[in-house]
Formats: sequence, structure tokens, C-alpha cells
Amino acid sequence: MLFDNKPHRTIWLNPRDPACVQIIDQRALPHDFVIEDLRSIDEAIIAIRDMHVRGAPLIGATAAWGIYLAIVQMQNQFSFESLQKDGERLKAARPTAVNLAWAVERMLAKLASATTDFETIASTEAEAICTEDIEICRNIGVHGLSLIEDIARRKNGEPVNILTHCNAGWLATVDWGTATSPIYHAQQAGIAVHVWVDETRPRNQGASLTAWELGEQGIDHTVIVDNAGGHLMQTGEVDLVIVGTDRTACNGDVANKIGTYLKALAAFDNEIPFYVALPSTTIDWELDEGKAIPIEQRDGEEVTHIAGQMADGRAGSVRLTPQASKAANPAFDITPARLVTGLITERGVCTASKIGLMSMFPEQVKIL
Amino acid sequence: MLFDNKPHRTIWLNPRDPACVQIIDQRALPHDFVIEDLRSIDEAIIAIRDMHVRGAPLIGATAAWGIYLAIVQMQNQFSFESLQKDGERLKAARPTAVNLAWAVERMLAKLASATTDFETIASTEAEAICTEDIEICRNIGVHGLSLIEDIARRKNGEPVNILTHCNAGWLATVDWGTATSPIYHAQQAGIAVHVWVDETRPRNQGASLTAWELGEQGIDHTVIVDNAGGHLMQTGEVDLVIVGTDRTACNGDVANKIGTYLKALAAFDNEIPFYVALPSTTIDWELDEGKAIPIEQRDGEEVTHIAGQMADGRAGSVRLTPQASKAANPAFDITPARLVTGLITERGVCTASKIGLMSMFPEQVKIL
Repeated sequence: MLFDNKPHRTIWLNPRDPACVQIIDQRALPHDFVIEDLRSIDEAIIAIRDMHVRGAPLIGATAAWGIYLAIVQMQNQFSFESLQKDGERLKAARPTAVNLAWAVERMLAKLASATTDFETIASTEAEAICTEDIEICRNIGVHGLSLIEDIARRKNGEPVNILTHCNAGWLATVDWGTATSPIYHAQQAGIAVHVWVDETRPRNQGASLTAWELGEQGIDHTVIVDNAGGHLMQTGEVDLVIVGTDRTACNGDVANKIGTYLKALAAFDNEIPFYVALPSTTIDWELDEGKAIPIEQRDGEEVTHIAGQMADGRAGSVRLTPQASKAANPAFDITPARLVTGLITERGVCTASKIGLMSMFPEQVKIL
Repeated sequence: MLFDNKPHRTIWLNPRDPACVQIIDQRALPHDFVIEDLRSIDEAIIAIRDMHVRGAPLIGATAAWGIYLAIVQMQNQFSFESLQKDGERLKAARPTAVNLAWAVERMLAKLASATTDFETIASTEAEAICTEDIEICRNIGVHGLSLIEDIARRKNGEPVNILTHCNAGWLATVDWGTATSPIYHAQQAGIAVHVWVDETRPRNQGASLTAWELGEQGIDHTVIVDNAGGHLMQTGEVDLVIVGTDRTACNGDVANKIGTYLKALAAFDNEIPFYVALPSTTIDWELDEGKAIPIEQRDGEEVTHIAGQMADGRAGSVRLTPQASKAANPAFDITPARLVTGLITERGVCTASKIGLMSMFPEQVKIL
């Protein structure tokens, strides 16, 4: 998608230097746009661990390119055993992202049987993971577009107001995003859309990343505090909610950024459609229901302090709470399937239920 | 209540200087405790308008003392006509607080018939408004205490977990607070309580004021982002919700700080009692239902920026959003009576309904 009116992905091999993978250092957004060079597996691990990149699909893509960088570093001394150790280190960089382990395993499987051309095999596979992710996100957009078209038709061309939470945008994937892909497709189809962007405390990925994405793409949007969405729904200012998910259970329960559940309750109470956009890689086919998903408890400092841009333009952070006050910081919550109108997958839209998911992914029936 | 282990009110006449009313400048909390001298009606207006003081009851008390200061300034040239103009200016300082107009009118009514001793009459009446407010808040605490006692009994002495939103504490009143009064009474009764404090974006009155109050009072508490409450309710970590209200309709609908509605939905979904503590002065007997309450739209800068304490200890603020992004900032939302378990008034606890309110305030039946 666009930055400064030029198309970008979130990760790419430097075309002028095959020993260098480039990413957008997302910690600097929205105030600065910084491209970071990754030249070693250690730099890839740091980028994942310290959230220079985030979002399950992008974490997977970065891990794949991390394996590639490890091979480049080996020069002509390829060792699969050493690569397996690197893979374990990569997997440990973030504990919860399902795609991280999946991408590492896929890279290793491809390389396990190779005898030569390790670098080429690795770069081809890493690039394949990226292009597949783009295709998945594109298809989520195509299927989600029809939901927006229906509403636009009913509103006779009045802008469709869509609320989203956190960042399930192109910055969380390689391109297009998940929850944002239907929005970008609607824009391309000439449909007037306006997006309510939940700021998404504590890390404010909505205020910093989603707002930036939409702005660069030229999409009308308004940032709101997380408290405001219910009121906007009560007063008819939201037509549709689309969020992403970190993990989806077989019954359609979804784990997503903390606060998603509250928006789902408000949407349900006001009869507003609430959709979850997801690549099938986030479905945990071995999980019967959302309750079993462990919730990451993050550092309370994300609650007691907040980062932003100071008046002089430099990055800074301020303390919000009294020194003596504790803070708790659960990072995700579970939205029960009963509150979810539907799931937007790369294969189509289905109900948030075992039957819905089986209809989209019949090859998984053996597991279910 | 306590600051630095010494009892305080939020507003008082300087015992050593009858031309000086003192307040806590709440903008400096929680990082600094600043006492401000008010020596003129203009300073009282600024204190209300710029939120040195906030909370409907305290705004009313400050307005009453503002009328007193206007009279002190007149010295021996008392003019009721001039005082009426001052009253209008005071009423215009904040548009929504019902208590502001009420306190001004009460002061003027008392002074309208006076022929001498204007200063004494005004200080006596302003002090009466303050002591009545303290008594109302104390009674809210006594009635709310029984709800907490019931839960403590069921939990066999395990701490009662209470969630609150925004600041309906002693800093919003003259003493005790509304939503916090039952909590302070529970502490005095020896009941173990723990309070989940919603930070309450955009102005973070929870993180800055409620957390500070509870800390100074020695009450165990944990600050959370506004997104977290739903998850805590889903996982059984909240026994009771108590919030305040800015305005209550006759049918029991309540207008309170933005985000209250979302917590009420979550409490209802998880069968957790949701109570609203209110002095009867916030009941709008001429309002049939909450929908008719106008919602203040505040400056978007409260969303795009946030204030706090910088690493060097000074106050500062940081920008959270891209320069080009708009922000919307509705300040209140309406929680429908169907989600409210009960209202805690100074006369007792009743259902959030016309019948409930009539049972507590039968003298209002003529209006209803």
C-alpha cells in the first residue's frame, strides 16, 4: 500500500544487496518513516522481539527471511543442524504468534532435503510466503468488499462508517492487511468509506498505525478513544465493525486485542454487523473454544506510561499514573462466537461456528 | 479524605484569610499536590472553566464560593444587579453541570432578600452547600456499603473486587465522593476491597485522580486501560461495578463519562451487579429518558495528545496520532436503565426506574 504516494510492502529483499532484508521500523510510526536493514538472523530476532515488526503474518514473513539471512551468514559452510538451532531461537522471539513457528517450520522443511543452492531455495521460499500472504489478504478484501457494497447500496452513496480496533492493516501483514483489506478494496471500487479508528490502548496501534495507514492511503478516518465506540453505535454513526484476530477457535470464538469484546457487545446491542477478518492460518483447528486460549499478561509499564511525540518533535514518553499505583495489562480478550456476525476468510464469508468454518475449509473436517 | 495522612476537603475558606478560598488544583495530580488561592470571582470562573476543579458537586460548591468572593470584592458597595451578572458568568463557565446553575441560583435566592451582612450570609450559605454535599456523599456510602458487605459475606472475607470508571471520588465532590464513598465506608468497616481503576481516556481521570485518591487512602487498587474491564469480568475478577453519573433521567437512564455504557454491557453479559451512585441533585426530574441528554463534544486535542509526567519529573504532553488524522471526542454516553442493577442515592438503593426513583423521592411525584 501507499506511503508518500509510492507503493510499499512491509518487508522485502534489498534489490541492490542480496545480503540485506529491509523492513519498516514500525516503532517510529506515525511520526517518522524509518526503513531498517536486517543483515543477520540476530537482527531479525531483535526486530520480532522488540516489535520493530508486529502482526502475526508479518512476524511469520520476518522469521522466514531470518532463516534466509542465517544461510547467507553461513556463506559456503551450510549446516542444517545450526539452522535448526536458529529456528528455535526465532520461535522464542514472541511466544504467541502462531505464524512464527509455522513459517520457521516451513522454511526448514524446504531446506531439509536440499543439497545445494541453499540461499536461492531460502529466498524463493521466503518470497513465496510473502506473496501467498498478499494473495490471502487480497482475497479477504474481495470477500469483505461485498459486505461494504451491500451497506453502500442501502445508504444510497452516503459514506459507509466502519469501526476498527487495533491494527489489522497492511502493517500487520505483507500488504493489504486483514481487517483493512475490504476497506482498501472499497476505496478502489469507488465506494465512499469513513473509518472510526479506536486508538487501542495500551500500545495505541490504532492511533499510531491504522490512522497512519489510512491517511497515507487517502481514506477518510477519525481517531477516537476506546471508550467512544459504544456511544457512536448507539447514535447510528457506525454501519459495520471489522476487526482482525490473533487466534480463532473451531467454534468461531476469536482472541483479539484487548477491548474487542466490548465493541462486539456494543455492536450486538445496537444490531450492527460485527465481522472478523482472518487468514485461515490463524484458525487453531485443535481448539474447541476460545476460553482455552491463554491470555498474554504484558508489562504494566505499557499502562502507566505512554509514548508519543513531544512538542519539539522528538520521541518521548510520559507517566500517567501515581508512582505507587499498580497496573495490570492483559493483552487480548475473547469475543464469543455468539457476538460475531461472520468471519471473512480468504475463501469467503461464513458464520462464526464450526459449521461455518467446515463449509469454508472442508479439508479440515478430518481434524474436527 | 486523606492526603499525606492528613484529612482534606477539596474546597475551603482560608481560616487565616476570609478573602481567600482555597482549592486543590487537580490539574497537577497525581504527580504534584498544589493548593490554589481563589481571591476573585474571575479566579473562580477560571478554576471551573479550565478544570482546576471538576465533578458536578465540586463545581457547584466552587460556584457558591465564587459568589461569596464577588461580594468580598464589592467591599461595602453591594449590588445585587452586579451579582446577578456574576452569576450568569459563573453559569457559563461549564455548560453541562446541573449543579453549577443550581448553586448559583441558591446563593442568589438567599442574597435577594438580604439587606445587610452580605458576606456572612454568603459564606454561611456556601459552607451549607458544602456540608450538605458531604452529608449526601456520606449517606451514599452508608447505603452502598451494604451491597459490598453482602458480597464480602459470600466471598468469606476474600477481597471484594470493585471496578470503577472515571473519577466519582472525593475530588469530584467536597468529601467522600459518590462512587468511592461505599468503598471508603467498606474500608472503615474492615472489609477487604480491591479496586480496578479504568484509566478513562481521554483525560485519564481514573489513572490520575481515582488512583491517587485510593492510594492516599491506603486502598488496594490496580490501574487498567479502558479496554481491559470486559476481559476481567469474563474471567471472574470483578464482583461489583460502581460508577457515578452526571445526569440521571426519570426512567433510570444515566449519562456518565464516555465508556460507561461499554462496562455496563459487559457487566450485564457476565451477570455482575452494576450500580450507579448519585446524589439526588443529578436527577433531572423533567427528563423522561436518557436519549434526550445532549452529549458534549470536546476538543479533539484531548484524543490526539496526552499529558503526563516526563522522565525528568516535569509535566509534559505527547502527540499520539499522525498530524493529518482527525479526532472526535464525545465526552459522555448514555447507559440505558435496563443495564443498571440499581441506583445508590443518599436515601437508599433503588431500581433504575421511575418507580424506584419515586419510592426514594416521593415529593417529586407531582413532577412525574
